[in-house]
Amino acid sequence: MNRFEQQIAFILELDKLKNIYRQTLVLHEDRQENDAEHSFHLAIMAAVLAEYAREEIDILHVIKMVLIHDVVEIDAGDTYCYDTKGYQDKADREQKAADRIFALLPEDQCAAYRALWDEFEARETPESKFANALDRIHPMLLNYTKGGISWKNHNIHADQVTARNVGVTDDGSPRLGEFAAEIIKAAKEQGMLLSSSKEDFS
Amino acid sequence: MNRFEQQIAFILELDKLKNIYRQTLVLHEDRQENDAEHSFHLAIMAAVLAEYAREEIDILHVIKMVLIHDVVEIDAGDTYCYDTKGYQDKADREQKAADRIFALLPEDQCAAYRALWDEFEARETPESKFANALDRIHPMLLNYTKGGISWKNHNIHADQVTARNVGVTDDGSPRLGEFAAEIIKAAKEQGMLLSSSKEDFS
Repeated sequence: MNRFEQQIAFILELDKLKNIYRQTLVLHEDRQENDAEHSFHLAIMAAVLAEYAREEIDILHVIKMVLIHDVVEIDAGDTYCYDTKGYQDKADREQKAADRIFALLPEDQCAAYRALWDEFEARETPESKFANALDRIHPMLLNYTKGGISWKNHNIHADQVTARNVGVTDDGSPRLGEFAAEIIKAAKEQGMLLSSSKEDFS
Repeated sequence: MNRFEQQIAFILELDKLKNIYRQTLVLHEDRQENDAEHSFHLAIMAAVLAEYAREEIDILHVIKMVLIHDVVEIDAGDTYCYDTKGYQDKADREQKAADRIFALLPEDQCAAYRALWDEFEARETPESKFANALDRIHPMLLNYTKGGISWKNHNIHADQVTARNVGVTDDGSPRLGEFAAEIIKAAKEQGMLLSSSKEDFS
């Protein structure tokens, strides 16, 4: 394949993100959100909320990062963030997926997009910290707006959501960190999240 | 509402793009693509195919443009591109939608995003020409890859696809213009597009 054909092959491969379903529900239909929709929503959030990044960021870099951050799920599947078992081999499955999928691109772009994905995962640069903050706040925002259905379905308690989200979100954006804490507080008050790990919704 | 609340309201409003279905089908499920998925796919295409733009472009500007180019369909709905009747009042419906939706944002962002949408529609700048080229080639690429189902369903002939797509695509990107012509030729040869407006698939 020539360069252009390789690029088109990568673009067509990413169509599969439209069929990888997450635990989060879309707001106006009774169905789960898919990775393409989630990535779209993060990209627009990155553009609109850029001013709240903790450090100075290259916003194009953030947007490219959120657009490709979930492509590994084409092979590795979506691992629910409170699924401890699934998390054990998640990193390994995702590395293999990254090897295959980015290699569809011409060599220079393969290296650039793989580096972007590695950067997102490592969460060390200002851009990746902000991208990860968006990735954490997005499902919380949708879940809360939708009445907490997906938290209730999985018997999630407030401490789990706090542990997973508040630190990472705050690390990328103080304002989004506050917002995460506000959402958790309100969700707890409204009975969308359990107060303690000893309770369940059933 | 304060600035942050306005921004979140806009972001939540855009969730509705996940429920606006286009004529194009996704590749790996038997269902129509929605606007959020389409916009996601255009954004990644913009990043990967930037080198083929006819003129020098600001790629961040292009990506922001494709992310918001369809938000007016939240109110105005998706008008199938070969629906002549639907096109008569499309512009009017979409202007009203733009007035409402971008006004959810704080004033400075409302102005900036509205200008971006107007720029996309006017198709005069290098960025908007490239964005429009992507918007035209994307459904052709999916349709062709999926065996032309949506062209066949609507009895579309090759001249219609050529008239709508080749000029606009070429205007934004010579390579994508060629690609559009190649797709149409192959689709015609493989019986996915009618040769003349006097035929139909039934």
